[in-house]
Amino acid sequence: HFFTILGASGWFCHVLQESLLSSASGYSNYRGILNWCVVMLMLSNARLFLENIIKYGILVDPIQVVSLFLKDPYSWPAACLIIGIEFFTLWHETENNQHLLQLHLNMHQVLGGVISLGIYTVLFLKLYSYQDSNRWCREIRQARAKRLTRSYSCKWVTLTIVYVYMIYTNLFTSRVLFNMYYFVFAPTLCYQLNFPRSPRVRKRFLMRRLFEMLFLMQLLVGLIQQWMVPTIQNSMKPFQDMDFSRMVERLLKLAVPNHLIWLLFFYWFFHSSMNFVAELLQFGDREFYRDWWNSESVTYFWANWNIPVHKWCLRHFYKPMLKRGTNKFLAQTAVFLVSAFFHEYLVSIPLKMFRLWAFMGMMAQVPLAWFVGRYLNGNYGNAAVWMSLIIGQPIAVLMYVHDYYVIHHSSTE
Amino acid sequence: HFFTILGASGWFCHVLQESLLSSASGYSNYRGILNWCVVMLMLSNARLFLENIIKYGILVDPIQVVSLFLKDPYSWPAACLIIGIEFFTLWHETENNQHLLQLHLNMHQVLGGVISLGIYTVLFLKLYSYQDSNRWCREIRQARAKRLTRSYSCKWVTLTIVYVYMIYTNLFTSRVLFNMYYFVFAPTLCYQLNFPRSPRVRKRFLMRRLFEMLFLMQLLVGLIQQWMVPTIQNSMKPFQDMDFSRMVERLLKLAVPNHLIWLLFFYWFFHSSMNFVAELLQFGDREFYRDWWNSESVTYFWANWNIPVHKWCLRHFYKPMLKRGTNKFLAQTAVFLVSAFFHEYLVSIPLKMFRLWAFMGMMAQVPLAWFVGRYLNGNYGNAAVWMSLIIGQPIAVLMYVHDYYVIHHSSTE
Repeated sequence: HFFTILGASGWFCHVLQESLLSSASGYSNYRGILNWCVVMLMLSNARLFLENIIKYGILVDPIQVVSLFLKDPYSWPAACLIIGIEFFTLWHETENNQHLLQLHLNMHQVLGGVISLGIYTVLFLKLYSYQDSNRWCREIRQARAKRLTRSYSCKWVTLTIVYVYMIYTNLFTSRVLFNMYYFVFAPTLCYQLNFPRSPRVRKRFLMRRLFEMLFLMQLLVGLIQQWMVPTIQNSMKPFQDMDFSRMVERLLKLAVPNHLIWLLFFYWFFHSSMNFVAELLQFGDREFYRDWWNSESVTYFWANWNIPVHKWCLRHFYKPMLKRGTNKFLAQTAVFLVSAFFHEYLVSIPLKMFRLWAFMGMMAQVPLAWFVGRYLNGNYGNAAVWMSLIIGQPIAVLMYVHDYYVIHHSSTE
Repeated sequence: HFFTILGASGWFCHVLQESLLSSASGYSNYRGILNWCVVMLMLSNARLFLENIIKYGILVDPIQVVSLFLKDPYSWPAACLIIGIEFFTLWHETENNQHLLQLHLNMHQVLGGVISLGIYTVLFLKLYSYQDSNRWCREIRQARAKRLTRSYSCKWVTLTIVYVYMIYTNLFTSRVLFNMYYFVFAPTLCYQLNFPRSPRVRKRFLMRRLFEMLFLMQLLVGLIQQWMVPTIQNSMKPFQDMDFSRMVERLLKLAVPNHLIWLLFFYWFFHSSMNFVAELLQFGDREFYRDWWNSESVTYFWANWNIPVHKWCLRHFYKPMLKRGTNKFLAQTAVFLVSAFFHEYLVSIPLKMFRLWAFMGMMAQVPLAWFVGRYLNGNYGNAAVWMSLIIGQPIAVLMYVHDYYVIHHSSTE
């Protein structure tokens, strides 16, 4: 037949079919969109980077970083630990030295303050864990010893046997001082006897983490100097004038570098630095974070991005509260409350301003967690978590910087 | 034993394990990163949008669009088709009317020129396909008729039988005029007898496509007025001064709106408009594009983003060339050459500048296709295709606008 000849020769080139983007086609392969997002993000940020360089020139100054560590005694973590008791004396001393009003010079002191306060907080949490764990251990031992001596009716015999037994087990189960110091330097906040140990120090792994630490440190400081500081300085005017649309624009502009710096900081601190220390000490448990980037609820994020603190809260705060019969939601809120207190403490003391922005930021997580858990899940929940991270932080940062700026500018003018 | 009691009470909270981001962990679930990209892109663009509004105010002017269609006869596609022969007369007339040197007013004429030239090109391609397909059909019929009349030795008897047979089959297989007009309006460039037809006109589908057409049209015009025009105008200075770093910055700045507008245009033209027309005409073959967004090579992109043109090139240009014994690579290059010619033709005549930027842009696809095909595949290839789309287009746009601006500004100054 005529049509079959035509058909065989490829003459018919149309068939009945739907467009891919019509819902009727059932098509759903959009792999390429991820690559599109990545390319668009890279190009947008390349432009921002170039614009920044054109506008401000190169502001990165590695000498400044060195001087930061030389000028400011607070930044010497080791020194801080040793001078210990003189801490508060020094603090008041620098307070009288308050004649450098430039933002970036003050920042050094603030940073030093944050680092030393951070170290003190960590030490506090570690020692709390140490005494708590040892108390549990002691309680178990006492119970066992009492069971052993139940047959004796004389009290002093019992006590003597208990203490002899305890000294004996203690000598065998722990080398007290070594264990203590190992725990102080180990990248964890929870004490236990006999930490799991990695079989050997992998030299290549150690070198790579060290290189990452040094490189990311420089990158972080560079990004702050080149990108954060000018953006923050440009944000002061709209925030003083309370020009709303410009405030939002500045906030979004600040969100990008702030978020990148936070991500870099996360990797630098939780992956590079902690793994470096752990590898040196052959500390075996490297779970310093879990897959928080996939978190579909606020609670999951907070439970997975900072495992050492999360573990501590769970072991020494949340579970003991549950044991005492507190209800779950109350215990969770209490954890957030303590966490909010520490956030505020780490920010407001170095800045010498008590503003509650950090506290409120942390406490706002409770209704946010409820809202996201109730109304959003899957990718929407994940996007909401990212959104709260990307937007929430710079709001708090701008609040503090604004108040700091207002106080110090109004005092000079 | 003492340790088992401790273990059972949850006292040991560390186990030997690697960090997720260490290569040793073998972890690879980064689902959340896609959401991160989307959120970052949304926020970055929200900021750009806000910055643009603050800087320029609202530039969108729907009246301008209406006036564009009223003032400029080129923009009336129907009118264009009817006035046909008067086209060139009108063209020269408007040329004398060249006293409006503002970019956006000239743009109307240019746009009108592009639309009318585009319609003529489409008509040319359709008619070429019509005659080509009918010639094939005729050849097959003649061959069949000759075979039927092989027994007759008398030439005039043969000829009569051939023509009678042809008229007979023609009457039965096609309603010539109706077929011709249907083909002219159908969203395809390749003629065939009896196109596949959809069973009925889906009213909801039609309405949705119509709404998309009208809405996206407004959005496109709005984005061009609000985002493209100011960015292009700001780009002129660096391009005249040949300030390289600023040129790159402007290029990247232009890339984002240009790309978004191209994407919107793609959806508007290939999905909304073509499906609308197809639904009206009950034209069954809705494959106007394939999944070019996943394309991992430049060739795949060009073969899948514009199916009507691709089909035409394949059927009436590439395959006939192969039949005539041309080698594959040469035939492909020839297709790109013709495509480059049409791109240049559609741009340089309305702008009245012969600059070859569009031609070169298309011809650059040949070495690019070779490079991507040779060195990149998978997601890297896909990213390279996106990159060439996002960056390549604004380069050509800026080149033309720059030259256009230089010509028209140097003539007035």
